[in-house]
Amino acid sequence: MVVQQTLTLGTRGRGTYEITRQLQDVVRGSGIERGLCHLFLQHTSASLIICENADPSVRGDLERYLSRLVVDGDPVFEHMLEGDDDMAAHVRTVLTQVDMTLPIVEGRCALGTWQGVYLYEHRYQPHKRHVVVTLRD
Amino acid sequence: MVVQQTLTLGTRGRGTYEITRQLQDVVRGSGIERGLCHLFLQHTSASLIICENADPSVRGDLERYLSRLVVDGDPVFEHMLEGDDDMAAHVRTVLTQVDMTLPIVEGRCALGTWQGVYLYEHRYQPHKRHVVVTLRD
Amino acid sequence: MVVQQTLTLGTRGRGTYEITRQLQDVVRGSGIERGLCHLFLQHTSASLIICENADPSVRGDLERYLSRLVVDGDPVFEHMLEGDDDMAAHVRTVLTQVDMTLPIVEGRCALGTWQGVYLYEHRYQPHKRHVVVTLRD
Repeated sequence: MVVQQTLTLGTRGRGTYEITRQLQDVVRGSGIERGLCHLFLQHTSASLIICENADPSVRGDLERYLSRLVVDGDPVFEHMLEGDDDMAAHVRTVLTQVDMTLPIVEGRCALGTWQGVYLYEHRYQPHKRHVVVTLRD
Repeated sequence: MVVQQTLTLGTRGRGTYEITRQLQDVVRGSGIERGLCHLFLQHTSASLIICENADPSVRGDLERYLSRLVVDGDPVFEHMLEGDDDMAAHVRTVLTQVDMTLPIVEGRCALGTWQGVYLYEHRYQPHKRHVVVTLRD
Repeated sequence: MVVQQTLTLGTRGRGTYEITRQLQDVVRGSGIERGLCHLFLQHTSASLIICENADPSVRGDLERYLSRLVVDGDPVFEHMLEGDDDMAAHVRTVLTQVDMTLPIVEGRCALGTWQGVYLYEHRYQPHKRHVVVTLRD
């Protein structure tokens, strides 16, 4: 059995947005007990990450770290059509990932105790982001 | 149904090589309408990435960025058997990815409007690179 | 057919631990000849990587590189509850990956000649790490 659906997520600018609960709802709704849950973000300036979900300062630290690693408006960037965050967002996306596969065990994505799934918006402006979810038993 | 085939790609030195069309041809040829398309690059000095496919300067910027992030011939590297690009290529590969899964929707990989799939050669010299493609409905 | 099992791995502090043989044993035991092997590490301070498996200096170089890229106790980090390696381990994990899918061809994970699969422990202290393995033909 293959179950496929697209989640549309509104972001409010750069930062992380937890989607764990929405994912678990999709898995529960499918009735699949054992298999795989695949996520695919159809964009080049946002990512999917798994991150510690207990202390919000972890995601603040991650953002401070990435902002220094990939500097908005870096002079080596030519591609600046849409602003200083444009090319930086593409680099951040390549250094992280847009596809992710999670195991389904006993009807749920088998995340570890401290793992949350996040959409990471890399642009300053709000966007509508699409995640194609494919489940397979 | 599982369909599996290996693509052999010739590279002409460091840089990105778009493989989106070849992938879509494999998916179309399989007749699979809904499922997953998995890619696996059998190498440790080249990667698979998804990147913006409209403005070529994005991939030029990405290469300039990565060349500065992972410096060829970095003095912390001992592994230099095959030249300055050898260990840098391994690091670039670990920071990106060699496996990738894409959703198949209505008989095609459901890439976003601006997403292209690229083989990223990290070595200076031309190479033959092998990608194992596995499709599953 | 879906085969699922959890591998529990003991680490002895920061560094890479090859798990290729254990994986191949799981695949062989399943009897699956053609399909996919998915790995999922249920932690936020360790990773799964594919790396060159012939010269151990490659993994030494990778560790020296990463230690400089993600500095333990970096002053931008607020999250230091468990020590200098705590937040650095989360960043290293986001820059690498915790999920990985490998193709099964002729009853084995079809790794390239120089590819090994490694658990990368990013914490200083020994840990018990859990990898959920899901196989599908």
